[in-house]
Amino acid sequence: MAKLNPNYRKLSAGYLFPEIARRVREYSAQHPDQAIYRLGIGNTTEPLTPTILQGLHGRVTALGNRDTYSGYGDEQGELELREALVAYYAQRGVTLDPSEIFVSDGAKADAANIQNLFAQDSVIAIQNPAYPVYVDSNVVAGRTGEYDAAAGAYAGLRLLEGNPENGWFAAPPTSDGQGGPLDVVYLCSPNNPTGAVATREQLQAWVDYARRHGAVIIFDAAYAEFIADPELPRSIYEIEGASECAIELTSFSKFSGFTGVRLGWAVVPHALRTEDSEPGELNRMWNRRQSTFFNGASNIAQSGGVAALSEAGQRESRALVAYYMENARIIRAALRELGLEVTGGDNAPYLWVKTPSGPDGQPLGSWEFFDQLLHQAQVVVTPGAGFGSAGEGYVRFSAFGHRENIAAAVQSIREKLNLQR
Amino acid sequence: MAKLNPNYRKLSAGYLFPEIARRVREYSAQHPDQAIYRLGIGNTTEPLTPTILQGLHGRVTALGNRDTYSGYGDEQGELELREALVAYYAQRGVTLDPSEIFVSDGAKADAANIQNLFAQDSVIAIQNPAYPVYVDSNVVAGRTGEYDAAAGAYAGLRLLEGNPENGWFAAPPTSDGQGGPLDVVYLCSPNNPTGAVATREQLQAWVDYARRHGAVIIFDAAYAEFIADPELPRSIYEIEGASECAIELTSFSKFSGFTGVRLGWAVVPHALRTEDSEPGELNRMWNRRQSTFFNGASNIAQSGGVAALSEAGQRESRALVAYYMENARIIRAALRELGLEVTGGDNAPYLWVKTPSGPDGQPLGSWEFFDQLLHQAQVVVTPGAGFGSAGEGYVRFSAFGHRENIAAAVQSIREKLNLQR
Repeated sequence: MAKLNPNYRKLSAGYLFPEIARRVREYSAQHPDQAIYRLGIGNTTEPLTPTILQGLHGRVTALGNRDTYSGYGDEQGELELREALVAYYAQRGVTLDPSEIFVSDGAKADAANIQNLFAQDSVIAIQNPAYPVYVDSNVVAGRTGEYDAAAGAYAGLRLLEGNPENGWFAAPPTSDGQGGPLDVVYLCSPNNPTGAVATREQLQAWVDYARRHGAVIIFDAAYAEFIADPELPRSIYEIEGASECAIELTSFSKFSGFTGVRLGWAVVPHALRTEDSEPGELNRMWNRRQSTFFNGASNIAQSGGVAALSEAGQRESRALVAYYMENARIIRAALRELGLEVTGGDNAPYLWVKTPSGPDGQPLGSWEFFDQLLHQAQVVVTPGAGFGSAGEGYVRFSAFGHRENIAAAVQSIREKLNLQR
Repeated sequence: MAKLNPNYRKLSAGYLFPEIARRVREYSAQHPDQAIYRLGIGNTTEPLTPTILQGLHGRVTALGNRDTYSGYGDEQGELELREALVAYYAQRGVTLDPSEIFVSDGAKADAANIQNLFAQDSVIAIQNPAYPVYVDSNVVAGRTGEYDAAAGAYAGLRLLEGNPENGWFAAPPTSDGQGGPLDVVYLCSPNNPTGAVATREQLQAWVDYARRHGAVIIFDAAYAEFIADPELPRSIYEIEGASECAIELTSFSKFSGFTGVRLGWAVVPHALRTEDSEPGELNRMWNRRQSTFFNGASNIAQSGGVAALSEAGQRESRALVAYYMENARIIRAALRELGLEVTGGDNAPYLWVKTPSGPDGQPLGSWEFFDQLLHQAQVVVTPGAGFGSAGEGYVRFSAFGHRENIAAAVQSIREKLNLQR
């Protein structure tokens, strides 16, 4: 008798985005004539750029010719793309070898799958709030107990609490805590959902912690290209010692508008080690994992990636980023005008907004403010509580959208949102 | 201290295709002037067809326009593609709902990931020989003991032995065997590597077994489109009762030349059940699994898939299949002329060839015949032993290749291969 993997039933029921979709559907059904402004999901809206289109069309044409057709590609991704990525890292002073890069179909899959490299009883630490995939993948893998709704956490996971005081980026623990030191630490910078970006000092503290304790950092840099401040690190390998203790995951999704095209990459340095690993073993394990469970990103997407990394491609992608960041500026200005507390949105496409007070003078809950924004201003955001208990009392605004929709959303908020004073 | 997932070290070291590549590299280095004929890996070689190219170019163009650009797609894959797949199944009398179809980036990833739905202590049965991914994914998931080189098997896996007597397609066990009845059974038809195709009766016996014992069949139909014989089932859902007990995995890779473009799909019927499941739970679990660990196939590839399923697209893909099957016919005729025993290659792109006798009158080992073919005729095949112990004494010829290369390989075999008489 086949039996189910029981871990799926541990996953807390109301998965964030479907629940948002349900509430929006319900509201729309009751108010069919109302325009809805969607600043919830971080989904790109602007077209692919000319250089990328040329790369994609070029590869499609090549696949139609028997002399340039190709089937299965190189195991770690096409060498041309991995070399372009090496050159791209070199622009910011990071030296990598193409054999340390693993092209994937996006950072989400890598973020979900990377836990498979580590022992079942690893002490896993995850930022709170965080993008749900780090937690959910470890739940499905059986590394947690049940969900404790009161605590807003799964038994067995260690949470790194973000708050205004630490700039939404927790420092490494100074004492071991229950279960001993951390083994695997997920860090996301620029952060989804808070928009916070780790400073050099903050990352150095984590790299030092990881080296001292033999921990591995999973560094999700999917939003790195939104960092405008030259003082902020865009790759963890800008930090001394990181190649011994960190895996970096990143993506073309938001930089080049590839959310639907699907392309990303992981860096697993040869120098990365654990107490029980042979030299280079983690790099070889990830290769084995990917060549067993995956068969490469679409070759068409890979040619799009090569184009995106060309000089013209980078220039166009930076213009795309600037477009979304101007959206962020517009949203931030409007929300601050209304007296709302806003962080993020300067080096990240997400704005992290504290809920205003409700009728009783207490701050609204995340879902309460979500409902208020939807019902009064027809603006959809993402409740911070959906990213973990520390997100309660906040909502996330996404800066992805056509400019006129952002402007209309902002105007609707200005005109219709009725905040308690 | 992070520790490694110890299961990776259980994987038997000489992974098949890298070992083949190593031997070919070594031979080439010693004989730099020799042409090498590659009939090893099942990699498509013919260009994409006009209708598919039009679909791909069309989508790229659409992504360059802000009114037709799209980011993240529908969770289970674009509805248009899932509806086209439903219509495609209807052509062969199978009724599915779009919500039972999960578009993926290929059958290999699905075949590797599907085990995650089932309990850790499931009794897993795999055909021997078999495509390595079914075994390797269960090893990495920790469902096996160590590899027993003498037995050619991992402790804890149940092997379904193929042989000439059962037409390389084992019947369900009639007694329970050690560990009780089977829980999860992987079946591949048309089979990689043997080219054998299960008959209706053979599949019915498995469906009956699965229903009687509450087992789930993972049916890998990646080569279904190579079936020419109308009496042979191309989908397991042509078999009565299969929707209660079978998941089907398949792919555009070989049918439409998408090995590099990456597109496939899984069918997880609402009726599928285990003893401990609620109605529809497996379908919902796979949706949850995919929406957590995956973010959809490339939207460009999905438009290529829609084009491939159009009337013109299907006609062109059938012509592509016919081209490869003519290759198979040419190879088979030549090998039989030399007195070799060949099966497969009539409803599958793989030929399964018994090794000839060596100098001592005993049949050569798989790797010995591999080396003989490489050294004498410069033809690369795949040793049957690489697919499991029951493949020892066989090699697999792949029918994928340009016609002139197939002809040259066959001529080289005819002229240079020196078989014992």
